[in-house]
Amino acid sequence: MRIRLTLALAATLCAGALARAQPPSLRIDVEGWLSSHQRSIVGELADLLSIPNAAGDKPNIARNVDALRAMFTRRGFRTETLATSGNPLVYGELAVPGATGTVLFYSHYDGQPVDAKGWKQSSPFTPILRDGRLEEGAHDLPDLATRDRFEPDWRLYARSASDDKSPIVALCAALDALKATGHAPTSNVHVVLDGEEEAGSPSMLAAIARYREKLKADAMVILDGPVHPTGRPTLNFGARGILTVELTVFGPKFGLHSGHYGNWVPNPAFELVRLLASMKDDRGHVLIQGFYDGLEPLAPEERAMLDAVPDDEAALKQLFGIAETEQPGLSLQDAVQRPSLNIRGLSSAFVGANARTIVPDRAVAAIDIRLVKETPSTPMLERIKAHIARQGFFIVDRDPDDATRASHPRIMKLESEADGTNAYRTSPLAPASRQIVSAVTRVFGQPPVQIRTSGGTVPIAPFIDAMGFPAIGVPIVNFDNNQHAENENLRLGTFFTGITTLAAVLTAEMKLAPAGK
Amino acid sequence: MRIRLTLALAATLCAGALARAQPPSLRIDVEGWLSSHQRSIVGELADLLSIPNAAGDKPNIARNVDALRAMFTRRGFRTETLATSGNPLVYGELAVPGATGTVLFYSHYDGQPVDAKGWKQSSPFTPILRDGRLEEGAHDLPDLATRDRFEPDWRLYARSASDDKSPIVALCAALDALKATGHAPTSNVHVVLDGEEEAGSPSMLAAIARYREKLKADAMVILDGPVHPTGRPTLNFGARGILTVELTVFGPKFGLHSGHYGNWVPNPAFELVRLLASMKDDRGHVLIQGFYDGLEPLAPEERAMLDAVPDDEAALKQLFGIAETEQPGLSLQDAVQRPSLNIRGLSSAFVGANARTIVPDRAVAAIDIRLVKETPSTPMLERIKAHIARQGFFIVDRDPDDATRASHPRIMKLESEADGTNAYRTSPLAPASRQIVSAVTRVFGQPPVQIRTSGGTVPIAPFIDAMGFPAIGVPIVNFDNNQHAENENLRLGTFFTGITTLAAVLTAEMKLAPAGK
Repeated sequence: MRIRLTLALAATLCAGALARAQPPSLRIDVEGWLSSHQRSIVGELADLLSIPNAAGDKPNIARNVDALRAMFTRRGFRTETLATSGNPLVYGELAVPGATGTVLFYSHYDGQPVDAKGWKQSSPFTPILRDGRLEEGAHDLPDLATRDRFEPDWRLYARSASDDKSPIVALCAALDALKATGHAPTSNVHVVLDGEEEAGSPSMLAAIARYREKLKADAMVILDGPVHPTGRPTLNFGARGILTVELTVFGPKFGLHSGHYGNWVPNPAFELVRLLASMKDDRGHVLIQGFYDGLEPLAPEERAMLDAVPDDEAALKQLFGIAETEQPGLSLQDAVQRPSLNIRGLSSAFVGANARTIVPDRAVAAIDIRLVKETPSTPMLERIKAHIARQGFFIVDRDPDDATRASHPRIMKLESEADGTNAYRTSPLAPASRQIVSAVTRVFGQPPVQIRTSGGTVPIAPFIDAMGFPAIGVPIVNFDNNQHAENENLRLGTFFTGITTLAAVLTAEMKLAPAGK
Repeated sequence: MRIRLTLALAATLCAGALARAQPPSLRIDVEGWLSSHQRSIVGELADLLSIPNAAGDKPNIARNVDALRAMFTRRGFRTETLATSGNPLVYGELAVPGATGTVLFYSHYDGQPVDAKGWKQSSPFTPILRDGRLEEGAHDLPDLATRDRFEPDWRLYARSASDDKSPIVALCAALDALKATGHAPTSNVHVVLDGEEEAGSPSMLAAIARYREKLKADAMVILDGPVHPTGRPTLNFGARGILTVELTVFGPKFGLHSGHYGNWVPNPAFELVRLLASMKDDRGHVLIQGFYDGLEPLAPEERAMLDAVPDDEAALKQLFGIAETEQPGLSLQDAVQRPSLNIRGLSSAFVGANARTIVPDRAVAAIDIRLVKETPSTPMLERIKAHIARQGFFIVDRDPDDATRASHPRIMKLESEADGTNAYRTSPLAPASRQIVSAVTRVFGQPPVQIRTSGGTVPIAPFIDAMGFPAIGVPIVNFDNNQHAENENLRLGTFFTGITTLAAVLTAEMKLAPAGK
């Protein structure tokens, strides 16, 4: 553990050390109950995974909504279907006597589209139990429905097994376990389940204004994403945003013979590569003016938090087959505290067997910028445009006509999402953050892995911004879950640990002050 | 006319002015004969175009060979089929009494592959007569076979109508016209017709050693390519060579989530664009060390020759839709005297609707370098490799294995043709050059357009090098002939002018000294 302790850390990271003296009775109680109820928990998950959930499959979306409402109703929730312009939200409220606050749990019930051909099972919606990872030669195990015990390394294969139906079942199981063992949640438990997350949650975001009163809470817990690769309980306090931009540089109106016109007619691919090269140096530092504006040095407790993340960077480098990182010496956790500039695609004419000796008519780069809290989308887009203009390009929003071509030697079509998605970050020193960290630390006897900023983007960040509550991610699924791809899976040991993590979160001593983000 | 005259020019460019006093009787004689024999000439061409000539179509290749031998046999040639490892060469010799030398005429009888769907006629091998350009709404004209007169703007549409069967028919027609009007060639006329030019003439080049004695000549006339866009008789004294290189930069072994790993894992597209940007500045100057080595300032007569080419650069810029050329102020003719560096293709992951937010696993650039006489292929490839190595890349010839990945932060796979194709250039001051220029000038009353170096590449340059004779290109087809594409065509006025040009070349007063290239 590379924790450099500071006094300010004591309250967050070291809550575990202080709490370790307490008997971890909740963990013993919950794990005991879970060990004798594996069949019903896995069975409930398998049933839910058997309902197809592509966002466009309206009849099955309706079946999911009915099943989800029934699951929460069985746990004493008052449930509702909240209409939106697209798939509805499933909403539920469990009033807890003596609650010290209200926590809203978010998950989503839609899944990524499936290409059944790539799956090693009859259907992505017919869950299969296996004795390990498919990539490591795992075998199918029969009798999913009648087994009483599941080994930790066994996995359930199905679409949404990890993203994002298992957290819903885990929340229900955690509530069941608490009730059965005489524990109780400390806050009112509200849930909201999105039906279009994989499409960027457009309908949910549009519905915020309509359901604002209902969605109010003292804190939000996001049930999505994987735990740290170590498998340890993990909390996320933020996520980067994203802005995508497509850049097209125009050359001659049609591809020209590179012998007759090469080095007379300008080559758009050369203009594009010079522009892109002007944006980032060979040490990974972005050269766009103002790109890092607003970033402050990390406070000591933030520094310690990053250093405490048990990343195995050597293993990652070996896995990825890279000798050096983009900014040698910068840790993965440090890297994702900054905005990034990534070329995600390049295209101009042809390479390989189809290559032809031409001056291409255009060259295209698709780039994405991951944003942090200090670098919101709108000014970032303006900075990018200003940089491109400074390189001598005339910026247009459509293919240029003859008059534009005749009057501008360098023409760039710039297309971007209107708004991008901003980052969010909840302070790890906010009361909700500290209390959830304390609860998980107390239950597990050591602090969870705490991620200041997750590198990826969560489309509900605008929802968090609009509602103004502190939001904390509590992932419960394995890192290597093939999320979004074929053969998505859930490691059952990780899942059961996650149920205990949620039991800890539900019993956090929430003494909630006004939200601090 | 922007000719800046120098004394040295008099012998070449101004031969016309000196000769203009002579009555252009040959032109009158030849054009008179041609005007009354259009039906048979166009008929012979249409018959030849009716034989399919894709290089892989062996039965039809054999039919072409038979037809070509018969055509030249009818003109008194002794013909032969020269076997090669691929399609045979058709060879012919016409001994001329009192000849002052021997000129070898080169053409090719194979054509580019056809995609019949794109052609506006029943078959690319069923020639169609039209009253103009298809792109300008030309109409089909019936009775191709029975017409006696063809307007200059009419066009014959068929594969190889311009590239490269019409020059063969034109050479035969020129010989017929000379004979019928009491003129005679001044040199022995040898012909060699390639059957695999569109594939880079591999078999012909390999057969040079075997047929060296037979192919010897005092000069070679290359019948290929188009005349200058003005339509004026044109002579080419050289052509650029070509070297193609494909560059692949490797990133992580598989595409990685750009949120979780962007700006930690190196992005291969950024490494590629930085490399490419290091190769050429924004004024079109190539920065690879030694790229222009060996180039000398043009001699005054070469300067005058370039300046005399009647290029309409403003019209080209308008046609291509560009406001400025790559090296503002540098003329098209000047540009092609230099080697060029062209990005002909770029590819990395995806752009547009398929774009995904990943760090790509690789990025590829296809580049071509047009070579001039002073910059042969082999040292050029070494210079490119040295430049890439100086940018910090470890160069490999196949995808890297794990050990290579682990020990080199920047890895570049470089793939190139073994040898490239060198440029050739014949001095316009060589005796053969001066005599052909004089002959064409005398016949037409003004000098032809003289191209010191054609920008494109001729795959027979190695043949010219191996044989060591002066080689002069005498194109006779229209510039806008859709060569290599669908709806290839021949403008008949340009073709008939070309027959007269060839009659002039055949009657050049060739007093051939040892070859000067």
